[in-house]
Order: sequence, then structure tokens, then C-alpha cells
Amino acid sequence: MIVRFERNGKQKHGWFVQEENKIRVIEGDIYKRETAKPIMTGLEIEADQVELLTPCTPSKVVCIGVNYKDHALEMGIELPREPLMFLKPSTSVIGPGQEIVYPSLTDNLHYEAELAVVIKKEARHVKAVDADEYILGFTCANDVTARDLQYGDGQWTRAKSFDTFCPLGPVIAPKVDYQNLRITTTVNGEVRQDSNTNQMVFGIPQLVEAISAVMTLLPGDVILTGTPPGVGALQPGDEVAITIEGIGTLTNRVAAR
Amino acid sequence: MIVRFERNGKQKHGWFVQEENKIRVIEGDIYKRETAKPIMTGLEIEADQVELLTPCTPSKVVCIGVNYKDHALEMGIELPREPLMFLKPSTSVIGPGQEIVYPSLTDNLHYEAELAVVIKKEARHVKAVDADEYILGFTCANDVTARDLQYGDGQWTRAKSFDTFCPLGPVIAPKVDYQNLRITTTVNGEVRQDSNTNQMVFGIPQLVEAISAVMTLLPGDVILTGTPPGVGALQPGDEVAITIEGIGTLTNRVAAR
Repeated sequence: MIVRFERNGKQKHGWFVQEENKIRVIEGDIYKRETAKPIMTGLEIEADQVELLTPCTPSKVVCIGVNYKDHALEMGIELPREPLMFLKPSTSVIGPGQEIVYPSLTDNLHYEAELAVVIKKEARHVKAVDADEYILGFTCANDVTARDLQYGDGQWTRAKSFDTFCPLGPVIAPKVDYQNLRITTTVNGEVRQDSNTNQMVFGIPQLVEAISAVMTLLPGDVILTGTPPGVGALQPGDEVAITIEGIGTLTNRVAAR
Repeated sequence: MIVRFERNGKQKHGWFVQEENKIRVIEGDIYKRETAKPIMTGLEIEADQVELLTPCTPSKVVCIGVNYKDHALEMGIELPREPLMFLKPSTSVIGPGQEIVYPSLTDNLHYEAELAVVIKKEARHVKAVDADEYILGFTCANDVTARDLQYGDGQWTRAKSFDTFCPLGPVIAPKVDYQNLRITTTVNGEVRQDSNTNQMVFGIPQLVEAISAVMTLLPGDVILTGTPPGVGALQPGDEVAITIEGIGTLTNRVAAR
């Protein structure tokens, strides 16, 4: 599992070994670029001694709306014929354990659990059949949304773009069976979303093809693949935890207003 | 006027002196950050000897829809009560003289001339009255749009996010009377848009306040402030030129499909 952390004022990537609770420090670039390749330094540190950061620092986060069959059914929405895209800015991204700030502009803050795809190398006009080559791995995401602004504005950008509205993490799992992963959300320990990525309308290879036909995806960019049923409101002080099978749990607290 | 250019394989900023057609080379960071301050190197080069690049490299481009009174009137749209925001990704940005690529996914490619604001320093919860402090200057932008996808998708992201869909340039003018600038578009020399920034629904200080209340603007980030009446279609081979008083002309050709 790939992690990113800060140590002695420097941000580094590492390989998290869960059974030992240790991080093996990586130097160099974890992405497939012309720059330095990743090197295992041999240095190991206790995972508890560092604060995990967002596992990647995307230049953009491309999101897909209405991409779970069971969610569309719940909302009484017709299934889209093509992936419906919107963007969250890089400034909305926070790491595991960081606080989601409840903006004064909304009265209806919602969580949305999503499987996030992290891009490995520059992707332009990629075919679905080749998509896996362009994927570094998978992490958990929370597509935090000001539901009142989303409906009021028509365009979803403002509702989805506030600072802290894109928690990502805690790790990047390079290999998971992404077509069949349980995805759950709890708020203060109570289950609110519980579905499986096998409910996706457009699978991940199709999404990589559709998005990269429009815009070039850069190393570290992230695709949010839609949320299952059960979205709902968060209150200040709530702790929201998103768990995806084979990846881990992304936990964030909502700050006081 | 601030320009960005490539010389001997290096990208630099410079100060363009129009009457002499020369660029005075700047070293260091033109933005207000903790890093090296801009230094005039004393080196001067002929403007014709270099290729101009996008004058800035935004992490995000925040756009405002329906922000000209005369355009809203033309379209029969009610004036928005709040600025309507959407995003274009950094990968859509191209420089003056670069080609706009006509995507195979659209049959209705439109130009939209816009005054672009370039951010000088990190802006978060900025009040309108303080907005000028956060602005490095102004440039011309073309908010290229696949009009058929815009209406088909409902969300505007895909229609506005293709690679090459955000020409910016040619220069950043630090000081202009942004509340009263003529803005025109020609296609193959024929005037298509001709209005004035005094027709804006929300002025630039209000836009900086509204956007920075949602998302942090970073140095080099760009705000597109909406388009005046007269939007229309481009064909492969067309040359589109956007001129804003006190700034200059941004010219781009549409590549063959």
C-alpha cells in the first residue's frame, strides 16, 4: 500500500506494511515519468510516528455523477447514457484525519463515499482495454457536497469545490478487484452507505476512456467513480468514515461551524 | 506587460516593451510568494526571436457563466443572483498562436471572448474591497465550448474541458481600467463580438470575493469573467482573434479535424 507522509519537514512516499505497522521509505517519483524512479531506501519507520497526508496530490479531480445503478434507482433518476463529468479543484483535497470545514454558505452538507482511481502516467485518448496500464492504484474518497447549492446553482461546481471537500486516502492500493469491492460509510459509527462497486453503471476502464478522450490525465490525477445509495447530511462534530474492501478506511471529522 | 516565453529550452517571464518590440528578461518568481522575488536581469531580447507561451500556468481556471447583461438579454436568460461558477482544467490551457483542436465528439465548436484575471497571491475569503491586492493583472481568454455537449450534458464540464479549450494571452497587463474595456472577437477578420466590460453583471472585485469564499485561489490561477453577446461557431481552419483594450490580441487557429 502506497502512503504519503511528512517527516522532519519533508514529504515522502512510503510502502505501508500493515501487519508490521511499518512504513518503508521510498525516494524518487512513484509515477511513471522521465524523472527519478522510485527507490526503496531500506529505511523503515513506525507508522504511528508519522502523520499520513493525501496519498497523491492531483492537479485535478474528475468526478462522475450518477454512476451506481442502486443509487439511480433510489433517486428515481434515469441511468446516464454517457459518463457525466464534473471537476473538483486541487484546493479541495485533504488527507485522512484532516477536518472537513462546514461552510457558512450551506445548510445541508452531505458525504458521498467513492472509489478513487489514481493515475500513474499521462493518459490521453486511452482505450478501455488499455486503461489498467495508466492506473497507479485505488484509494477512498469523500465527494463532500453542499446539497442545497448543488440544486440551487444547477451547475455542481460551487457545491463540490469548497476547500476540504475532497478527503482522499489513507493509502493507494495498487491491485484490487475494482469491479467487486464492498463500499461503506459510517457516520459516528452508524452505517449509512453499504453497497458494492459491481453496481457501477460505467466501469473504471470505460471511465478512463471517456475522460481521457476529453482531457489529458496527469500522473497523480484522480477519478472519483460515483457514490452508492444512502447519501445524507453531516453535522459539525460528526465523524465520517468510508471503508472500501481491500483498501482501508478514510476517516474525517466535520469541524465546528 | 508581462509575457512568458521559451528560450534555449528554458521558460522565463519577461517584460514586453511594445514600442521597442523587446522583452526584458525577468528571473525569479513574478508572484507574491515567499520564494525569490522578480529580478530584472538587464538582458533584453527581440520579441520576434521567441515564441510566446501562456503568460501564466494556472492550477485551475474558474469561469463565470452569464455575466454580461447584453449577452443575457440576447439569450433571453434571467440575470443570475449570484456568480455561476464552473471550472476548466489546467490541461485545457494553450498559449497565443497555438492551435485549438476540434474534437471528434462535437459538431458545434464555439468561441467565447473573455477578460481573464490572473491571481497574484493566495486568496481565501477576500473581500471585494481588497480584491485588487490579489490581482497580478489581466489577459485575454477564449472559453472554447462544445455547445452541443454543453446542452446535452446539463453539466458544462465536458463541453468546456477539452485539451486546447482555454487559449490565454498574449500578455498580462498589470493595470487596466477593467470596468470599462472594449472586448471584441473576429473570426477570419470578421467582427463577431463587440462589447465592453462595463456590461458585466458581477464586477471583478465581487467575483474574487465570491470565488475565494468557496475555494482558495493560488498564484497564477485564472478567473474567466464571462462572455459578451455574439458567440458563434468555429470551423476547422478558422482564425479567431480576441482583442481587449489595453491588453492586446489573442489569436488562435482551429486545427483541421
